[in-house]
Amino acid sequence: MSRARLEFFSDAVLAVAITMLALNIWVAGPGHGPLSSVLSHEWRPWVAYLISFFTIGVVWVNHHALVSNVRVVDRGLLFFNIVLLVFVVQIPVATRLLADYLSVGGPSARLAAVVYGATHEGMAVGYILMLEWILRDKQTQPPIPSRRRLTGRLKYYSAHVLYLTVIGCAFISPMLSLALSAVTDVYYVFKQTPLRPMRTAQRSDAAAPPPEGG
Amino acid sequence: MSRARLEFFSDAVLAVAITMLALNIWVAGPGHGPLSSVLSHEWRPWVAYLISFFTIGVVWVNHHALVSNVRVVDRGLLFFNIVLLVFVVQIPVATRLLADYLSVGGPSARLAAVVYGATHEGMAVGYILMLEWILRDKQTQPPIPSRRRLTGRLKYYSAHVLYLTVIGCAFISPMLSLALSAVTDVYYVFKQTPLRPMRTAQRSDAAAPPPEGG
Amino acid sequence: MSRARLEFFSDAVLAVAITMLALNIWVAGPGHGPLSSVLSHEWRPWVAYLISFFTIGVVWVNHHALVSNVRVVDRGLLFFNIVLLVFVVQIPVATRLLADYLSVGGPSARLAAVVYGATHEGMAVGYILMLEWILRDKQTQPPIPSRRRLTGRLKYYSAHVLYLTVIGCAFISPMLSLALSAVTDVYYVFKQTPLRPMRTAQRSDAAAPPPEGG
Amino acid sequence: MSRARLEFFSDAVLAVAITMLALNIWVAGPGHGPLSSVLSHEWRPWVAYLISFFTIGVVWVNHHALVSNVRVVDRGLLFFNIVLLVFVVQIPVATRLLADYLSVGGPSARLAAVVYGATHEGMAVGYILMLEWILRDKQTQPPIPSRRRLTGRLKYYSAHVLYLTVIGCAFISPMLSLALSAVTDVYYVFKQTPLRPMRTAQRSDAAAPPPEGG
Repeated sequence: MSRARLEFFSDAVLAVAITMLALNIWVAGPGHGPLSSVLSHEWRPWVAYLISFFTIGVVWVNHHALVSNVRVVDRGLLFFNIVLLVFVVQIPVATRLLADYLSVGGPSARLAAVVYGATHEGMAVGYILMLEWILRDKQTQPPIPSRRRLTGRLKYYSAHVLYLTVIGCAFISPMLSLALSAVTDVYYVFKQTPLRPMRTAQRSDAAAPPPEGG
Repeated sequence: MSRARLEFFSDAVLAVAITMLALNIWVAGPGHGPLSSVLSHEWRPWVAYLISFFTIGVVWVNHHALVSNVRVVDRGLLFFNIVLLVFVVQIPVATRLLADYLSVGGPSARLAAVVYGATHEGMAVGYILMLEWILRDKQTQPPIPSRRRLTGRLKYYSAHVLYLTVIGCAFISPMLSLALSAVTDVYYVFKQTPLRPMRTAQRSDAAAPPPEGG
Repeated sequence: MSRARLEFFSDAVLAVAITMLALNIWVAGPGHGPLSSVLSHEWRPWVAYLISFFTIGVVWVNHHALVSNVRVVDRGLLFFNIVLLVFVVQIPVATRLLADYLSVGGPSARLAAVVYGATHEGMAVGYILMLEWILRDKQTQPPIPSRRRLTGRLKYYSAHVLYLTVIGCAFISPMLSLALSAVTDVYYVFKQTPLRPMRTAQRSDAAAPPPEGG
Repeated sequence: MSRARLEFFSDAVLAVAITMLALNIWVAGPGHGPLSSVLSHEWRPWVAYLISFFTIGVVWVNHHALVSNVRVVDRGLLFFNIVLLVFVVQIPVATRLLADYLSVGGPSARLAAVVYGATHEGMAVGYILMLEWILRDKQTQPPIPSRRRLTGRLKYYSAHVLYLTVIGCAFISPMLSLALSAVTDVYYVFKQTPLRPMRTAQRSDAAAPPPEGG
C-alpha cells in the first residue's frame, strides 16, 4: 500500500468524524419552550463541540507530520493506524457523553469525563505505537537523526502524560478535565515537531515550508 | 503539510457537511396523516436545504480560489482553515434550527435566524483571517499585485457586511433574512475574484481556464 | 478549478450519499416483537436500499464518463454540477420516503413514488444541463465529433424520458414505478456512451481501456 | 475510468461506513439512571464496534491489495465492486442489529447473528467475483503467475468457507459467531496474499515494501 492511500483513508475518516461532531449539537425542535431558553441550557454541547473540533483538527495535522516520514508502509503500520482511528472515531461519542452528563453532575459526570479522557489517552497510545514503529530504521529514508527522535518521543510521550492527567482530573472535576483538554489542543496548535530530517525532505516536496531556524 | 492535503481534507469535510443537509429534510414516516399534508407542511426545510446546499457549494468554490494562491502552507493557515470549517459544519445545524422554528414564528424564529446569520458571519470571518494570512508576501509566489489584493479584500469584506445585514434582518423578519442569504449565494455563483496573478498561474495548471479578458 | 477537484468533491458527496442509504434500513431495536417478524415486515426498505445503491453507483460511473471529456472547468459547469448533486443527495431521503409509504398504500404511496421519480428526473435534468454545457466546443479538447454528440444526447435525453415515465407510473402503481427504476439501473450498468473522442484520450490516460471495436 | 478513481470512491465509502459504526455506540443521555449502570449494560455495542471496525479496516487493506493488480478497469469490475460495497455499507447496520439483540437472546439473537454472518458472506462473494474477474488474463499486466493465482484463490475462497461457518455457528451461539468473526479479522490482519507479480510491480511503485522472502 502506498503512503498516499494511507493518508487518504485516514483523512477521510477524520473528515467524517469531525463533521459527525455536529450531530452532538443538534438542537431540539419546537415544543420545548422558547428557543432562547433551549439554547441557554444547551451551551455545554457547543463548548464541547468546539474543543473536540480542534482536537480532531490537531490529530489531522499531527498525523500528517508523523506519516510524512514514512518510506515503507507495511502491515504493522496499517494496523497501528487503525488502532489510532478506532479512538478518533470515538471522539464524537465521548464528546456527546460528556456534554450530556456535564449538566447532571455527580458520579455520572465524572465517569463521562473519564471516558472522554480515556478516548484521548487511546489516541495517544495509537500515536506512540505508530511513532515507535516508524522510528525503526527501515521505515524511513533517510534515517531520522537521534536529536529528532528524542524531540519526537518527548512530544508524543508528553501527550500520553497529559491525557493521563486529564483522566486524573476527571475524578476531581469534569469541567477542569475538559478545560485541560482545551489547553492541550491550544498547545498542539502552536507546537509541532515533525520528525523528518531537516533538509532532505524539503527538496522533494515543493510545498514544504522553509526550514525553521536552520 | 502540502496544499493538496489541505484542499483534500477541506473538500471532504465540505462534502460530508453538504450531504448532512439531507438529514434536515428527513420526512416523518407513516402515522402523521396523509403524505400530501405532511409534505405541504414541510416545504420550509426543503427551501432551507436548497439555499444551504448552494451556500456550501459556494464555500467550496471560493475555498479553492483562495487556497490556490498559496505557496507555503503553515501552521497559521491550517488553524484559520479549521476556524472556517468549524462554522461550515454548523451550517446543517443552523439550517435545521431555522427550518424548524420558521413555522413557529415569534421571538424563537427571530433567534433561529440570528443563529443562522451568525454561522454565515463566522464563515466570513474565517475567510477574512485566511485571506489576510495569505496576503502577507511570504505565503504566495509570485506576490499578488496590489490591484488583485484590493479586489480580493473588497470581495471578502463585502461578504462580512452582507452577513451582518442578514443578522440585522433577522430581528425584523426571519424569512427576509433567509431570502437575503439566497440572494448572496446567487451573487457568489456568478461572481468570483481569484487572487492569483493572471498569467503565471495559468502556465503551471493545465486545466486552468483561459485568462478572462486578458 | 481543476477537473481533479471537481471529480474529487463529486465523488466524496456520492460516497457519503450512498452510505447514508444504510440509515434507511436501520432496524428497530428489541421491544417490537421477535426479530423475524420485524424483518419480514421490513423487506421493502432493503429492496429500496439495493435499487438506490445501484442508482447512485450508476450516477458515479456516468459522472466520470461525462466529466472526463472536459478540458475547461468553468463557473457554469460547477453550478450545473451542484444542481446534479442537490438531487443525488435527495436520493436517500426519497428512498426512505418511498420505503416507508409503500406499505401504507393509497394516495400517500403514490405521492411518495412521484417524489422518488421526480428526484431521478431532477438528476436527469442536471446531467442534461452539464452535457449541453460540455458539448459547446470550447469546453472539450479536441472537439467531440458529431456522431458522438448524437449518441451522447440520445443517452441522456432517453434517461429524461424514462424518468418521466417512472413518474407517470407512480400514479398507477408505486411498485411498478420502483421496478422501472431498477430496470433503468440495470440498463445503465450495461450500457454507457462515453463522449470522449476515441483515440486521443487513450494516449493521455495510462489506465484507459483498449479502444472498443476500433 | 482510471484505477485511481475506483480506489478513491471505494476508500471514501469505506471511510464513511467505518465512521458510521460509531452511531451504534451512541450512549443514551441522562434520565436512564446513573451512567455507570448504563455503560455496564452497554458493553456489547462497544465490543461489536471494535470487531466491525477491524473488519472494515481489513476490507480496506485487502481491497487495495486486490485492485492494485488491475490494469484495465472495465464495466464488469465496477459492477462487482459495487456489489462488494453494498455489503460493506451493511456492516454498521448488521453490527447494531447484533449488538441490540445479543442481550435479548433466544431466536432473535440467533437471527441477528445470521444476518451479521450473511453480510460478511456477501462481502466474501463480492471479493470472489472481483478476484475471478481480475484473474482473467486481460485485466492484469503482466499476467499473474499460476502459483499466485492459487494462493489468491485459496485466500479468498477460505474466507467464503469461514463466513459460512460463522453463519452456521449463529444457529448454535450468537456469541460464538461474533467471536469467530473477531478471530477471522485477526487472521487477516496478519496474513495477506497480494496477487501482484513479485518483482515487476515493485519497480513502478516507489512506496512498495521490499519483496517478502525473495
